[in-house]
Amino acid sequence: MSIYSQDIISHSGIIINQDKKLYSFNLDTILLYNFAKTVKKGKIVDLCSGNGAIGLSLASKTKAQIYLVEIQKKLAELSQKSIVDNNLEQQVHLINDDLKNVQKHIDHDTVDMLVCNPPYFKVSDQTPLKENPVLAIARHELKANLEDILYSIKVLLKENSHAYLVYRPERLSELLSLMLQQRLQPKRIRFVRTSTQKDANFVLLDVIKTVKEASLRVEPDLIIYDEKHHLTKEANQIINGN
Amino acid sequence: MSIYSQDIISHSGIIINQDKKLYSFNLDTILLYNFAKTVKKGKIVDLCSGNGAIGLSLASKTKAQIYLVEIQKKLAELSQKSIVDNNLEQQVHLINDDLKNVQKHIDHDTVDMLVCNPPYFKVSDQTPLKENPVLAIARHELKANLEDILYSIKVLLKENSHAYLVYRPERLSELLSLMLQQRLQPKRIRFVRTSTQKDANFVLLDVIKTVKEASLRVEPDLIIYDEKHHLTKEANQIINGN
Repeated sequence: MSIYSQDIISHSGIIINQDKKLYSFNLDTILLYNFAKTVKKGKIVDLCSGNGAIGLSLASKTKAQIYLVEIQKKLAELSQKSIVDNNLEQQVHLINDDLKNVQKHIDHDTVDMLVCNPPYFKVSDQTPLKENPVLAIARHELKANLEDILYSIKVLLKENSHAYLVYRPERLSELLSLMLQQRLQPKRIRFVRTSTQKDANFVLLDVIKTVKEASLRVEPDLIIYDEKHHLTKEANQIINGN
Repeated sequence: MSIYSQDIISHSGIIINQDKKLYSFNLDTILLYNFAKTVKKGKIVDLCSGNGAIGLSLASKTKAQIYLVEIQKKLAELSQKSIVDNNLEQQVHLINDDLKNVQKHIDHDTVDMLVCNPPYFKVSDQTPLKENPVLAIARHELKANLEDILYSIKVLLKENSHAYLVYRPERLSELLSLMLQQRLQPKRIRFVRTSTQKDANFVLLDVIKTVKEASLRVEPDLIIYDEKHHLTKEANQIINGN
């Protein structure tokens, strides 16, 4: 039996079909959707799109053509159902394939904006993979590692176009180092914390494909809860749209 | 005519001789001094030590032998005067040489802790170098670049020992990338901002020399001023020692 639901990110109005037994979007998805500066036209790619939550929701903000790239069949099927349910067949397109094959579907150097919520965890002997296989692939580098993903981003993006990512601070050094190797230059990063006195939980990155060196801005933190354990004004705006 | 002064960092009690026309320690120096976790014995190096403010002040916290490495003769002379004025000749030692020659003075893999406040700015045709030459060398990569400095840190440190650095967020990607190339793994970083709503001004880094991968902690920000433009409690403690 599946735990099936329909959800909406922030105030996009786009319905996302989810099977919570498989994988469902989470705070990081909502944060990335709100962090990304959406181009108004052209081509957008949501790489490692899962159930398509970010890519689909972006349709509320743009006239651009949107491509969801997801390797997992069950999540791709849910995405396709959401495309149909929202009448977005003319704007949102599903590519159910390995991102290593992405150039079979999208020409290199043609993408105006990209969003990516990659798997956060390396696969190691210590990795507990007891969870369901769909969730395991979404979370762990079972099908693609960080280098594969950044290479695909570099290949797809037009020169001087932006990619937006959400990641874990624990691997920030490796992430930034691999980005520079792919000549993806971080322009601004923002850390997300549950409260001001806690270590960061997530990092949001705005990255540009360029041969030039870029100067990085570390923007003010996004704090989720205030000292009274209530959502901060900004977090409430992002999560609940009010 | 020189603008000569004697100053003390935080509550160390160590007098630092400064010539404010040449170069004088600043907020970043005080922040790094307070961020570093001082080893109690062994060997400490202050690389790019300037007028010796950090290395000298650490003498108030440790029995370790402390080596100041500074290329500039005028700053080295001021440091030597401070060593004598504080009666620290048995503990603090000045090396007035290029850091590229540091192995002539200190054996590789022998240092238990290192602090470094490197020059922040690349030398380019656009660089305004109208300021005095001593200050220009302290601020700009005229005598050593980031790679030279990180290589020296790697060479000097014992395996699993820590280096503490202060740097500018604008070059964080490059810094972290070059660190990994030297197998210096950042363990914790902390951003410093003038206020919660401003981009970060400085980044403090705690780095370990190791072949293992390390998990990075992005610690709570250090905020200098509160919303009433008063020093925050923590900044006041660090800067004024109360």
